[in-house]
Amino acid sequence: MPLRPADLSFLSGLAARLPEGTLADVEPRFLTEPRGRWQGIGAAVARPRGVEEVAVIVRACAEARVGIVPWGGGTGLVGGQVMQDGPAPLILSPDRMAALRAIYPDENAMIVEAGMTLAEAQSQAVAATRRFPLTLASQGSARIGGVLSTNAGGVNVLRFGNARDLCLGIEAVLPDGSVLHGLKRLRKDNTGYDLRHLLIGAEGTLGVITAASLRLFPVPAAEAAALLVVPDPSAALALLARAEARLGGLISAFELIGGTGLQFLSEVLPEVRQPFPSPPEWMVLIDLGLPEGLSPVTAMEDLFAEGRDAGLVTDGLIATSQARRAAFWHLREMIPEANRRIGAISSHDISLPLGAVPEFIARAGPALLALGELRINCFGHLGDGNLHYNVFPQRGRTRAQDEPIREPVKRVVHDMVHAMGGSVSAEHGIGRLKVDDLERYGDPAKLAAMRAIKAALDPAGIMNPGAVLRG
Amino acid sequence: MPLRPADLSFLSGLAARLPEGTLADVEPRFLTEPRGRWQGIGAAVARPRGVEEVAVIVRACAEARVGIVPWGGGTGLVGGQVMQDGPAPLILSPDRMAALRAIYPDENAMIVEAGMTLAEAQSQAVAATRRFPLTLASQGSARIGGVLSTNAGGVNVLRFGNARDLCLGIEAVLPDGSVLHGLKRLRKDNTGYDLRHLLIGAEGTLGVITAASLRLFPVPAAEAAALLVVPDPSAALALLARAEARLGGLISAFELIGGTGLQFLSEVLPEVRQPFPSPPEWMVLIDLGLPEGLSPVTAMEDLFAEGRDAGLVTDGLIATSQARRAAFWHLREMIPEANRRIGAISSHDISLPLGAVPEFIARAGPALLALGELRINCFGHLGDGNLHYNVFPQRGRTRAQDEPIREPVKRVVHDMVHAMGGSVSAEHGIGRLKVDDLERYGDPAKLAAMRAIKAALDPAGIMNPGAVLRG
Repeated sequence: MPLRPADLSFLSGLAARLPEGTLADVEPRFLTEPRGRWQGIGAAVARPRGVEEVAVIVRACAEARVGIVPWGGGTGLVGGQVMQDGPAPLILSPDRMAALRAIYPDENAMIVEAGMTLAEAQSQAVAATRRFPLTLASQGSARIGGVLSTNAGGVNVLRFGNARDLCLGIEAVLPDGSVLHGLKRLRKDNTGYDLRHLLIGAEGTLGVITAASLRLFPVPAAEAAALLVVPDPSAALALLARAEARLGGLISAFELIGGTGLQFLSEVLPEVRQPFPSPPEWMVLIDLGLPEGLSPVTAMEDLFAEGRDAGLVTDGLIATSQARRAAFWHLREMIPEANRRIGAISSHDISLPLGAVPEFIARAGPALLALGELRINCFGHLGDGNLHYNVFPQRGRTRAQDEPIREPVKRVVHDMVHAMGGSVSAEHGIGRLKVDDLERYGDPAKLAAMRAIKAALDPAGIMNPGAVLRG
Repeated sequence: MPLRPADLSFLSGLAARLPEGTLADVEPRFLTEPRGRWQGIGAAVARPRGVEEVAVIVRACAEARVGIVPWGGGTGLVGGQVMQDGPAPLILSPDRMAALRAIYPDENAMIVEAGMTLAEAQSQAVAATRRFPLTLASQGSARIGGVLSTNAGGVNVLRFGNARDLCLGIEAVLPDGSVLHGLKRLRKDNTGYDLRHLLIGAEGTLGVITAASLRLFPVPAAEAAALLVVPDPSAALALLARAEARLGGLISAFELIGGTGLQFLSEVLPEVRQPFPSPPEWMVLIDLGLPEGLSPVTAMEDLFAEGRDAGLVTDGLIATSQARRAAFWHLREMIPEANRRIGAISSHDISLPLGAVPEFIARAGPALLALGELRINCFGHLGDGNLHYNVFPQRGRTRAQDEPIREPVKRVVHDMVHAMGGSVSAEHGIGRLKVDDLERYGDPAKLAAMRAIKAALDPAGIMNPGAVLRG
């Protein structure tokens, strides 16, 4: 049976079961996404104040077979938060459910509601002298519910894991409107199937996460950063292995930066200070969080010396102050902004087995240049094997002019990644953008099991219709 | 429709589809479990040599509606590997699928088959100058398939996580006989529902794990251990918080040891050298793995001094050699053996929010003593909030004499744990022993979703019938 639109009769019936003002007209921002490629539809926005109201909404939608599109901070990059066509859904925003329910600094845990932004969650941790280490470019807008639903990654995954690794438990409303009470803050709990991990990364298609129990960490005694020039990606990987041998467990981030990133910055963001007289071809940005007793500058200098002696590092800058460290990170964080200003033909969020990264970089460039004269900005989280491999028009051309090669570019990159044992969505998810990719590259047994689970938990198909799995 | 027994006609038909010798008679060891409480049944043991043979077996069982009981190393403590009654199942042993498929030291990853023992997996990592950090008392027998299916824990969870956190991907045969190809060794992969985490901890009820991609870690530059006497569990927790602030990310284990454990050792294992002239009431065993540049003895001495100055530590021993460190761990590891020799009335594998541990210990003892004169040996992985809270007869009595209070003892402990937000199975799982507990204490929405998933993936109910969920 097909879904039905959230029509006036449905909405007025639902409104009567909720506090006044819970349902509202759809502001345009709920129908857009950051890359401006897609336009969503929606009959109304529901802004519940708590899990019981979410349960009322989901139950009503399940009964009436009305679709629900969860919309967290709207920062997703794969269209998971915008439904383009079909019966007009109800959009569900958690922005009024943003409380810190409890914080336990000595247990390194806190319980927050889904509508809290990631930046606010970080601030709450800091206010309790702790850290919540998940760090993303969009953290000012992204909300915890969306961060978990997409299993967000970011720059500190190497040390602290993805969003799922930072979550001890969840509260969620399942597609039948029942409430999953799973906010335990336990480090070990082997009582049945791990529904937390099933809902995390399901992009709202199996239920709505309404609150989460999150892991916190002590603030390191000292922090250090360095921007080191490496001859090539192989050297960067070898340096990573040496850094892990020396400082295993203390490396917060190990980012690869290609020279194109610095060129793009000088092109469209000239106010960002360049670290080197001319952009090196390849750099790594290393960040350490150290315990009592280790000097940050000494730790970096020793690593630099080992890398230089092994021919893995040719130049570099070590941050001797937190201001300098922040400047290195500002540089890294401005690269996506420069990318946006230049306008990619196609952006790829890929991961590879670590050892395959150099070969991929070596092979993908020539394969793409066979399609036309392109510019490639390859950067990302090398410690996780996660590259943001973005393809741009030559200077003077626009992305509209290169629109015809958008699909071929994507195909070349994704085919190669898949053939090398990688993933075509490392951290952004499937959303609606990559449903085709999942069908093309996904394991058939996995896809069949996913469909069986979706049908079992959401038989009417109301939860985020068309995301992850074709409706 | 009920399951059918693996009768001769079924077995001869299956045998014809497999290499000779794949099916064998059931040796008695496949029908027992370590605590000797349960006796299993089984028509035959299947010992396949690879995933394709597992698929043939599962497909045949699915068609014939014959139950399969996966039997890894037989070390499970909750009866997950022994089916006591019902139509005789086929027992599936992975002992002939124990190969190291590949190891990637520079990527800190290896791919092993399900039948490899945990000890062998550790050895393979060491041979490649790496560590696989999961450490359990039963590691010489426990096999990777079972370790993952039960999401095993152990002593190093504080730093490295549970089994699920050490697994990058799995290969598995699903209940319809299809093969899930998920052995990617990626740190980030957000392409659809995380079936890896669904099968891990499902105790063989949703499929059979046949191989896994596992995380490795560099060997620390130095290691250190200390056995510190603390006034009470609260002080132990406060010391943990200080240790994490000083040395966050470097604490491999933080074990609580009650004085009863040392008394038990002197009672039944007098050859184990006692660390103190008389058993202190409470101790912690701390283990560190340190990077280049930190002296292990200095790090421990500094922590000891901080604890002593704060009144959290009253005495202690710091291992100044690896032999001494091994002796501390030997002491810890002999406590379960002493427990076995004395014979518990009831053993409890519980976890609590860290902050609730002292209150639980303070309240549970008096509540139990109302049931009779008992001895309590409370020890475990304090860093994870995971206690092994085991209850014994008074000296001179046998556990058979106290059998009548077994259920009341368990009920007191589990009710209190549940009321305090804890788990009645921290690391051992549900198996068949705790199906009642899961029904009693489990969240209703979680149970309903588990049943829906089980029915969707295993409609005939052939996979480990009666484990986790009632058949």
